Amino acid sequence: MPAGELRHPSILPATESGEDEAWLWTQIKAEARRDAESEPALASYLYSTILSHSSLERSLSFHLGNKLCSSTLLSTLLYDLFLDTFSKDAELRSATVADLRANHMRDPACVSFSHCLLNYKGFLACQAHRVAHRLWTQMRRPLALALQSRIADVFAVDIHPAARIGKGILFDHATGVVVGETAVIGNNVSILHHVTLGGTGKAGGDRHPKIGDGVLIGAGATILGNIKIGEGAKIGAGSVVLIDVPARTTAVGNPARLVGGKEKPARHEDVPGESMDHTSFISEWSDYII
Amino acid sequence: MPAGELRHPSILPATESGEDEAWLWTQIKAEARRDAESEPALASYLYSTILSHSSLERSLSFHLGNKLCSSTLLSTLLYDLFLDTFSKDAELRSATVADLRANHMRDPACVSFSHCLLNYKGFLACQAHRVAHRLWTQMRRPLALALQSRIADVFAVDIHPAARIGKGILFDHATGVVVGETAVIGNNVSILHHVTLGGTGKAGGDRHPKIGDGVLIGAGATILGNIKIGEGAKIGAGSVVLIDVPARTTAVGNPARLVGGKEKPARHEDVPGESMDHTSFISEWSDYII
Amino acid sequence: MPAGELRHPSILPATESGEDEAWLWTQIKAEARRDAESEPALASYLYSTILSHSSLERSLSFHLGNKLCSSTLLSTLLYDLFLDTFSKDAELRSATVADLRANHMRDPACVSFSHCLLNYKGFLACQAHRVAHRLWTQMRRPLALALQSRIADVFAVDIHPAARIGKGILFDHATGVVVGETAVIGNNVSILHHVTLGGTGKAGGDRHPKIGDGVLIGAGATILGNIKIGEGAKIGAGSVVLIDVPARTTAVGNPARLVGGKEKPARHEDVPGESMDHTSFISEWSDYII
Amino acid sequence: MPAGELRHPSILPATESGEDEAWLWTQIKAEARRDAESEPALASYLYSTILSHSSLERSLSFHLGNKLCSSTLLSTLLYDLFLDTFSKDAELRSATVADLRANHMRDPACVSFSHCLLNYKGFLACQAHRVAHRLWTQMRRPLALALQSRIADVFAVDIHPAARIGKGILFDHATGVVVGETAVIGNNVSILHHVTLGGTGKAGGDRHPKIGDGVLIGAGATILGNIKIGEGAKIGAGSVVLIDVPARTTAVGNPARLVGGKEKPARHEDVPGESMDHTSFISEWSDYII
Amino acid sequence: MPAGELRHPSILPATESGEDEAWLWTQIKAEARRDAESEPALASYLYSTILSHSSLERSLSFHLGNKLCSSTLLSTLLYDLFLDTFSKDAELRSATVADLRANHMRDPACVSFSHCLLNYKGFLACQAHRVAHRLWTQMRRPLALALQSRIADVFAVDIHPAARIGKGILFDHATGVVVGETAVIGNNVSILHHVTLGGTGKAGGDRHPKIGDGVLIGAGATILGNIKIGEGAKIGAGSVVLIDVPARTTAVGNPARLVGGKEKPARHEDVPGESMDHTSFISEWSDYII
Amino acid sequence: MPAGELRHPSILPATESGEDEAWLWTQIKAEARRDAESEPALASYLYSTILSHSSLERSLSFHLGNKLCSSTLLSTLLYDLFLDTFSKDAELRSATVADLRANHMRDPACVSFSHCLLNYKGFLACQAHRVAHRLWTQMRRPLALALQSRIADVFAVDIHPAARIGKGILFDHATGVVVGETAVIGNNVSILHHVTLGGTGKAGGDRHPKIGDGVLIGAGATILGNIKIGEGAKIGAGSVVLIDVPARTTAVGNPARLVGGKEKPARHEDVPGESMDHTSFISEWSDYII
Repeated sequence: MPAGELRHPSILPATESGEDEAWLWTQIKAEARRDAESEPALASYLYSTILSHSSLERSLSFHLGNKLCSSTLLSTLLYDLFLDTFSKDAELRSATVADLRANHMRDPACVSFSHCLLNYKGFLACQAHRVAHRLWTQMRRPLALALQSRIADVFAVDIHPAARIGKGILFDHATGVVVGETAVIGNNVSILHHVTLGGTGKAGGDRHPKIGDGVLIGAGATILGNIKIGEGAKIGAGSVVLIDVPARTTAVGNPARLVGGKEKPARHEDVPGESMDHTSFISEWSDYII
Repeated sequence: MPAGELRHPSILPATESGEDEAWLWTQIKAEARRDAESEPALASYLYSTILSHSSLERSLSFHLGNKLCSSTLLSTLLYDLFLDTFSKDAELRSATVADLRANHMRDPACVSFSHCLLNYKGFLACQAHRVAHRLWTQMRRPLALALQSRIADVFAVDIHPAARIGKGILFDHATGVVVGETAVIGNNVSILHHVTLGGTGKAGGDRHPKIGDGVLIGAGATILGNIKIGEGAKIGAGSVVLIDVPARTTAVGNPARLVGGKEKPARHEDVPGESMDHTSFISEWSDYII
Repeated sequence: MPAGELRHPSILPATESGEDEAWLWTQIKAEARRDAESEPALASYLYSTILSHSSLERSLSFHLGNKLCSSTLLSTLLYDLFLDTFSKDAELRSATVADLRANHMRDPACVSFSHCLLNYKGFLACQAHRVAHRLWTQMRRPLALALQSRIADVFAVDIHPAARIGKGILFDHATGVVVGETAVIGNNVSILHHVTLGGTGKAGGDRHPKIGDGVLIGAGATILGNIKIGEGAKIGAGSVVLIDVPARTTAVGNPARLVGGKEKPARHEDVPGESMDHTSFISEWSDYII
Repeated sequence: MPAGELRHPSILPATESGEDEAWLWTQIKAEARRDAESEPALASYLYSTILSHSSLERSLSFHLGNKLCSSTLLSTLLYDLFLDTFSKDAELRSATVADLRANHMRDPACVSFSHCLLNYKGFLACQAHRVAHRLWTQMRRPLALALQSRIADVFAVDIHPAARIGKGILFDHATGVVVGETAVIGNNVSILHHVTLGGTGKAGGDRHPKIGDGVLIGAGATILGNIKIGEGAKIGAGSVVLIDVPARTTAVGNPARLVGGKEKPARHEDVPGESMDHTSFISEWSDYII
Repeated sequence: MPAGELRHPSILPATESGEDEAWLWTQIKAEARRDAESEPALASYLYSTILSHSSLERSLSFHLGNKLCSSTLLSTLLYDLFLDTFSKDAELRSATVADLRANHMRDPACVSFSHCLLNYKGFLACQAHRVAHRLWTQMRRPLALALQSRIADVFAVDIHPAARIGKGILFDHATGVVVGETAVIGNNVSILHHVTLGGTGKAGGDRHPKIGDGVLIGAGATILGNIKIGEGAKIGAGSVVLIDVPARTTAVGNPARLVGGKEKPARHEDVPGESMDHTSFISEWSDYII
Repeated sequence: MPAGELRHPSILPATESGEDEAWLWTQIKAEARRDAESEPALASYLYSTILSHSSLERSLSFHLGNKLCSSTLLSTLLYDLFLDTFSKDAELRSATVADLRANHMRDPACVSFSHCLLNYKGFLACQAHRVAHRLWTQMRRPLALALQSRIADVFAVDIHPAARIGKGILFDHATGVVVGETAVIGNNVSILHHVTLGGTGKAGGDRHPKIGDGVLIGAGATILGNIKIGEGAKIGAGSVVLIDVPARTTAVGNPARLVGGKEKPARHEDVPGESMDHTSFISEWSDYII
């Protein structure tokens, strides 16, 4: 299967993405307006976070600034930082759009784009990480690390600012996610809560997992070391993965083994990062293990 | 064993529950008064959260309002919402009472009712969820979802407002608990931290576990899909459960298997959700597996 | 191997520790000054948290007070409490120093002491716990429990104030760590995120694990009951441990088994709590299990 | 002139006042809705303060609670206090209505009722005083004094909670107003900023001015001692008044003298507290003095 | 005396003003850097308010946003509003520069530009008013009035957003200043605290004073009605002015009279708004009155 | 009259003052305890501000830190600063005691010492000024000026940190008080609200009033220039004083004249700063002027 097939329509070229952003922003405002009308108790919240803003990047910067601020890192400073970064970087904005789409499409509990924008800690932590990553690559590392710390405190999501993350990402529920310094996450990946992409030992260097496009990682999975999870692979919930996982195969268990066997693992056709099928392997697995 | 036997005395009919609530509130105030006297540094906290209030529902609404507020969702708004909901709903108040009793009875580290009321994030997240659930059933869904988001940020407990939860619940430690949209939890259930009652795939519909009365779910257990965990069953810590678990049996491991075997699983006499016996199955398990 | 060999140089006698503290504080200020100069957006944060203070204990007390405060537990009260406790207790201060060194030495992502002091929730939660523990032993239990609750809310780290913790501790990432009332953790231990040192059942008494010096506990490991993890032992990520683990052996899996077999487990030479080698056992394990 | 003539239509009997309150609240919401639509940046403010509330007393209690709170007197506590007091006391609510009308009618800069409700510190200080006065008469004096202190800090308006104030009051601009313990202010009085109704000496007892219905007191006027300012009298800006002022006369200057002379002062026909005519006496005055 | 002579060098043409702004900003940063070095306790404050910003307008917007925010009007919203307004309006920025110079030059207690920028409530209230006035003229009146209200609460300075104010203004101490809707203040005016430019009666229309260039108004002066205070005039402290005051004359007393007599008032040579000579008229006055 | 006669018993030598402080603190705690018992809604406030503290200086430092803090000047920083200054300086503490006594003795509305400590903005502003003055004399001027600014914002009391103020001071109501850089205020002085001790012109140097022991300055009085108000003098409300006032005489009016005439002014026997007799001069005055 060519890598291209894993490309999700949500990952558009820059120009299209601009239009997409505009369309999405219109959509989000319409949703927020509808909710504000039906629920006066929430209207103030919806106006301050969405309806008073002139663009998605302003709304998101405002919301992140107010969520991540502390008594020693003021909301105005963070707002400024987020807005400045998003405004200058179309790539970043298109990643936000792709993430919003990914959340909306893959999470059946996601009732609207505005719901994701306001309430999904996985989405918000990911956007804040994208800014921290920009700061990291611009060698503004102390600031990037301070931001990581705030994200870890507020959302219980701990992503090293050096970690590279693609577009169209769903961090579902997200609490407890840990992503290490040299980890790489491809496009259209879905990662459940309590997932660890961790290192090994106290030596530096390239020591964290590389997650291919379209991968699905189940809740509580722990993936350790500079190993490769191939495109479209699936990692079962609660698995402890210490070995490479080939493309379009499934690894389950503690320690994780490939469904179908090490030598000739079973290969699936769908892109699990998008289909979000957590449990289809049960029968196979049961057959294999028990 | 008839289901009735699993009924815990803490779950009383509505009228008795009113008296119970009064008794408990008197108890909580006495505890707080004693602590305020012995620890002046804490007295201000105890007066503002408990001793200045005229009822348990006011104290709880005040405490939740101040814990869950943010710069865009003010404490006064949340306080109003909580107080209004608790005041109008005797069922809700009796669930709070049953939960307080469950925490106190089952957690040996719980030294007093006031300690639970003030400091237990599992208890507080559960009460806030109960309010979010009321809002959800009243079709005030955007508000319910905003509340879920605040609970997830503040307590790292992520319960979908549509999830139905019985009375006499202990969420012990609670960090990282995730409960999906169509999950159902019975009465007198005890759930440790990092437990997931998750869905499967991106399709909507009924897709989350149903947990019977008196169930005990160990730390880090992941239960996925529309499966049934029978009354009085026990799920071992760290288990990954993808299959139905019959009443009064124990499932352990990743993937989880029934202790005693699939065909004729061992059945226990106690109600593990109340006895909180996490480890009695060790010998059996060891014998069975290793 | 004599226990002495597990002693890390960071655990110095009291007098040396005073000098060490002074040296470390000078170092931290130099780091903060350098960062403040290179990143004006962060300078205010660095001055308020570090550069405006005259000692490490003041800086730490200020930072913890501002992180852990709430609308009902004011920062000034907490600052006072922390400063008073750290000022009077050289043991506590030397533990802080040893922890800072442990974080710096063992975590390759820890770029500086100031980074750890400001941004590492595991480090901060541990220092706040040390204060809560002092309060607990002084019979100021309601205050200790209130502090535990704030640490659990803010850092998602839930350590009972009665738990005894040695020096030179690394809580890496730390989200989701739960440590029970009668748990004991030795010196130079490294504990990853999502680790549980939990109890069994609802009976009180001594019911939590005892972790020896130099132990390494991988991410997501669940250790339950009054069992003994021997000095220099290693617990694999995601393991569920219900049995004693002898010194310098490795336990992995769910349920955990000893690498090399129950009868004659393989013994390693290094101190894993310091070497942080999470995965060297993979080959042995694979050989053993699969 | 009979006292009745000074009665303003805004001071209605209790029953009418209830209807009046409903009408006014409808009006205020309509204004706020119009402003929220035309100015999205203000919509969040208007929803949280007005549009999310179900009654004028809730809106006012919310607004005062958030304005007057401090880190040691929480908004939820004050909100509760205000709401409880306004809810139980129809007299208080009808005074609020009369004050809103007075502000709207007499201050040409008052563009709407909602503008007054949200933005006029004189109006807000007066309503908060009314609650403090209730607390005072209920012998809840420490709380009444704490409230006075917050009003003095936040609005720079210092009214002793024992002072008795009628209905239909305009405190225009209000900064610097001081009203002493035994002062009495009648109905339909208009008082500009920097006005003092002060005492004399350090002896207790009845020692502050008594202001009749319909009086107008110009900016910066200082009225000292247990003297009587008769109905419909007018006190010139900057006057220092130490003597009784007969009804419908004008006192000006430092020390204040009666326009037209002590023996046979000029009497005016209008009710200056309502007509707000500050300067018509200029010609007479000039003639008299210069 | 030609009006030109009253022009102060601080009021430069637009192009020069840009350079002037740059020079001043460099100066302010140098002052703040010097103070941060000498006083670590203040460094955090100085970095967050001045040294972390890239321009005077950003620093001022940040400072005003944080000073004027409330729980219902967030700092990020106000920061955005201020920054947007200052960024688009060079006139506004040049007025800020002229005001900073006026404060520095005329107030001997003003030790530095940064001191004025950070600490002078008169200066800050005036800049916030300038923004409110822009909003007013753009027909964003509800927002302008909300801003006025915050300025009145926070600084006890109550300036109607419709009031027109020139450049090079010193509001010294500023507490209690009230400026009405149709008031106009020229350039290079100095106004002490407790000064009222008030209206007369409840009729709308043009009803407030017009203050010429270079006027000095002493503490506590009350000027009422649509009267004209001529260029370079001086109003004595505590005066109550109800009549026109010719250019370069002095009015004193309650009611105010012209020094030298109504017919042929004494004329001074200096520009009192700049020379700040409050008391030179004492001898003349004493001679005249007593 | 010898200066000694003006010495008030509240100004004790240092040793006695220590005992006095202890007695007063005991008194304050007893009052607070009584109020907390009678008014649960206020108990949290009383515990956090008074009853949780071990000394008057801690209570005062806590209260001032929380009152004067802002988002850019944190409460912990201010608390530290106040506590450090009060702890090291017995003179300062004895001045606080004398001021508390002065407020209690001279203000009939002051029902208790704790009421003054918590609620009197004049008392609190004065204590904060005393700390700012210490900073000023220690050449920590930027910090002193920042503190002045906070006092001016929060209490609307603007006292230059260089101003020297004696002991036993009552700032009654206090709103709008302005005290210039080179002003000096003696012992046992009582100053009402809106009083200005102002300068003249823009030249530096010694340019503000010198107020002798035992002086009483009525509300709204404006005293300008380097003039001397003799011991035990009395300044009438609303007076504008530009000339020296001899000891034990009374100045009234705008411009102020001596009661009894310039040549042979009437002298009074009492100490008006203590007797607080604002109006006894009325008859004389009336006779003299009208």
